Amino acid sequence: MGAAVYHQLLLPDLKQMLAEDDKAGLAEFCNALYPPVAAEVLEGLPAEDVWRVLENCSLSRQVEIFEFLSLAEQVELVDKLDRKRLSRLVEEMSPDDRVDLLSRLGPERVENLLPLIAQAERSDIRKLLSFPEQSAGAIMTTEYASLPADITVRDALDRLRKQAPDRETIYYIFILGEDRRLDGMISLRDLILAKPDAKLADLMRRDVISVRVDDDQEHVAQELARYDFLAIPVVDSQNRLVGIVTHDDVLDIVQEEADEDAYRLGAVEPLEDSYLETPLLTIVWKRGMWLVLLLFAALGTSAVLSRYEEVSQKNAWLIWFVPLVIACGGNAGSQSATLLIRALALRESVGSLRVVGRELAAGFSLGLFLGGLGFLLALLYVPRGHAMIIGTTVMLVVVMGAVTGAMLPILFKRLGMDPALMSNPLIASLSDILGLLIYYNVAVLVLRLLAA
Amino acid sequence: MGAAVYHQLLLPDLKQMLAEDDKAGLAEFCNALYPPVAAEVLEGLPAEDVWRVLENCSLSRQVEIFEFLSLAEQVELVDKLDRKRLSRLVEEMSPDDRVDLLSRLGPERVENLLPLIAQAERSDIRKLLSFPEQSAGAIMTTEYASLPADITVRDALDRLRKQAPDRETIYYIFILGEDRRLDGMISLRDLILAKPDAKLADLMRRDVISVRVDDDQEHVAQELARYDFLAIPVVDSQNRLVGIVTHDDVLDIVQEEADEDAYRLGAVEPLEDSYLETPLLTIVWKRGMWLVLLLFAALGTSAVLSRYEEVSQKNAWLIWFVPLVIACGGNAGSQSATLLIRALALRESVGSLRVVGRELAAGFSLGLFLGGLGFLLALLYVPRGHAMIIGTTVMLVVVMGAVTGAMLPILFKRLGMDPALMSNPLIASLSDILGLLIYYNVAVLVLRLLAA
Repeated sequence: MGAAVYHQLLLPDLKQMLAEDDKAGLAEFCNALYPPVAAEVLEGLPAEDVWRVLENCSLSRQVEIFEFLSLAEQVELVDKLDRKRLSRLVEEMSPDDRVDLLSRLGPERVENLLPLIAQAERSDIRKLLSFPEQSAGAIMTTEYASLPADITVRDALDRLRKQAPDRETIYYIFILGEDRRLDGMISLRDLILAKPDAKLADLMRRDVISVRVDDDQEHVAQELARYDFLAIPVVDSQNRLVGIVTHDDVLDIVQEEADEDAYRLGAVEPLEDSYLETPLLTIVWKRGMWLVLLLFAALGTSAVLSRYEEVSQKNAWLIWFVPLVIACGGNAGSQSATLLIRALALRESVGSLRVVGRELAAGFSLGLFLGGLGFLLALLYVPRGHAMIIGTTVMLVVVMGAVTGAMLPILFKRLGMDPALMSNPLIASLSDILGLLIYYNVAVLVLRLLAA
Repeated sequence: MGAAVYHQLLLPDLKQMLAEDDKAGLAEFCNALYPPVAAEVLEGLPAEDVWRVLENCSLSRQVEIFEFLSLAEQVELVDKLDRKRLSRLVEEMSPDDRVDLLSRLGPERVENLLPLIAQAERSDIRKLLSFPEQSAGAIMTTEYASLPADITVRDALDRLRKQAPDRETIYYIFILGEDRRLDGMISLRDLILAKPDAKLADLMRRDVISVRVDDDQEHVAQELARYDFLAIPVVDSQNRLVGIVTHDDVLDIVQEEADEDAYRLGAVEPLEDSYLETPLLTIVWKRGMWLVLLLFAALGTSAVLSRYEEVSQKNAWLIWFVPLVIACGGNAGSQSATLLIRALALRESVGSLRVVGRELAAGFSLGLFLGGLGFLLALLYVPRGHAMIIGTTVMLVVVMGAVTGAMLPILFKRLGMDPALMSNPLIASLSDILGLLIYYNVAVLVLRLLAA
């Protein structure tokens, strides 16, 4: 049963209940459905109507559903709330989700809101908001289950029952020493399997894998994925537990990072929201800046071509193959860049010498084959001597594309920049210029040989 | 503490222990480290040495570590085992991981191996191997926790303790009726919080979200991610529970699908293993097939250019801007294709009319700006009348690129094909041809107007 099915069936019903102001039906909608399904159906309604639906259930249920809406949708919805209602909502939200929302609302609105929020929550918010975006601190939640080491399994289960209702997960329990120092970890599975009188100190894992509060979210995702964890603890510089990041948040991060890489590869500045949720002007801006840069890069090709005007004039056929030969370089370059950028994203330890070796070998094999094919295809248009120019150029251009496409992402990485900034179009632009230089130099050389 | 640190520190130690045949040390290495860390260190050793390390611990520990190695590494390792040892290893592996490995080994080797494997495991293997690749059935594990509905919480916990040791997760417990029908679900958290005398039938969720055994893995990942589940049940056509897919496997799938899309966007057939683990010949093949296709597509540009030879001869400057104008179309096209392919991957309900509208609007805004800029830049080389040709062409080509780049992935999706097959280079090739046609037609028209 996919949510799409629910969605189509439920939206008309929901609209009718709203039209009839059927409070019992609306309450049933909120309470009986899985929160993510309810959220998905609600996305089909205008903001005012969403609140008319949600006000029929408890605040905690409202928040459960609300948290499954996209951030853009959440922002639209809170715009309809007065400060008081907004503060109740924010108080009830889970720490990580509310910080995401508040970051979007901007500092003035947050400062305006904070006095209405209970003291404990308020300091939690201030703390989480203070971490840099995309750091472990910014994505973690502070609602983790924790216990001291010196109690028995029986006591632990009793205490856990009290903590459970407002913890993000109770399947991993963190054992804290003095000053919240992270001394160990135990899973609920191990707890269930253990003898009731056993002491946690004797059961817990002591070599806990953790991340630092200032680690990048990509590192957090990699660590959790590597160990197949449900959650990973986040500690400060004194190894004090400050939060946890759970598997569902990591799934979102992996998705987000993959999107970012894909956008960059396609020469679009990464979008914060989905394609259809992003305002047109933002899209135009995020594309335009790259297109302008690429236009300037393309001017290099005009410079090269205007320099070789004489050769072009004497050999009009040369121009027929300009787009073809430069495309070969760009294509080989895009491929190499894509392979390297994925390899770097997966943190393969990519030694640059080994990579250049591989790309040279792959480039030569591909270049030889494509060069041969290019020679044969050129024979359709030009005599054999001229076709040799095309074949040789295609071969050299493929090798050049493969090597530059592979090296530029590595270079960017070395410089501490995102390797994916080397987008496919940028690689193509650079190899267009180099490709033209190769083409005309090969042409001049071979034509001279043919004349001799 | 990242694994990279462990790795660098531990590999030399491990090599020394092997040199000294220090069995106690090797056993300590296997048993004290987290299995994924041990696996990472072992990847630095040749296959024979890996077995010399692993044979110092229990089979179950060997398997725990082995399962964290990459598939390519696993295949290399099992090549060193005789049938008997391999069958013990396969028996001990978890159902989903062993099916991944066996699929790699090929049908003959599997048939050769199966007679040595215990009956229960054997039929499990045959069943899982029978599901198509990348279906829910192929990625699920059959080791889930299940209970009947008519028992109390106390009994449930007792039974769970017995099941726990060989279940992939006990945090979600599936309630089965007659004939293994999936009647409900309860989380261990709810079980812990419930009164010991309560009946599961009164506590369980009845509207369980599940996937079908023949659903695509991408759908499985989307459902689990949507609901933030730890695991999602897999049922057959009669709603009988046949397996579960857990969060860690979904994380791998999301990563794998993102890689696939990225490779396709870069015109590389997706690799099964990582870049450095993939043999060079495979890489050459997976790139070559696309490069050949793209070379043939590029022939279209030669056809167009040879047709307009007369205009080119009379206006030699026209050729200076050929790579520039076609690059503008290709770049805008790559951007649109990337945006749409990501939007389709995230299953946004992308109505094609709305998309064309957005892309036309974005294309026109970008086209106007870039066209103006192109006009100004062309003035560096040519008089105003000619620069107008460049400006107008750039504008039209950007609009054309944006619309075709957006529509082709949608068209592919409609045809039931992977939208990401419309790689950036393929979009660029197509818009090269269209771009040249636009360029020369605009040129002919404006030159005629200027002459008049």
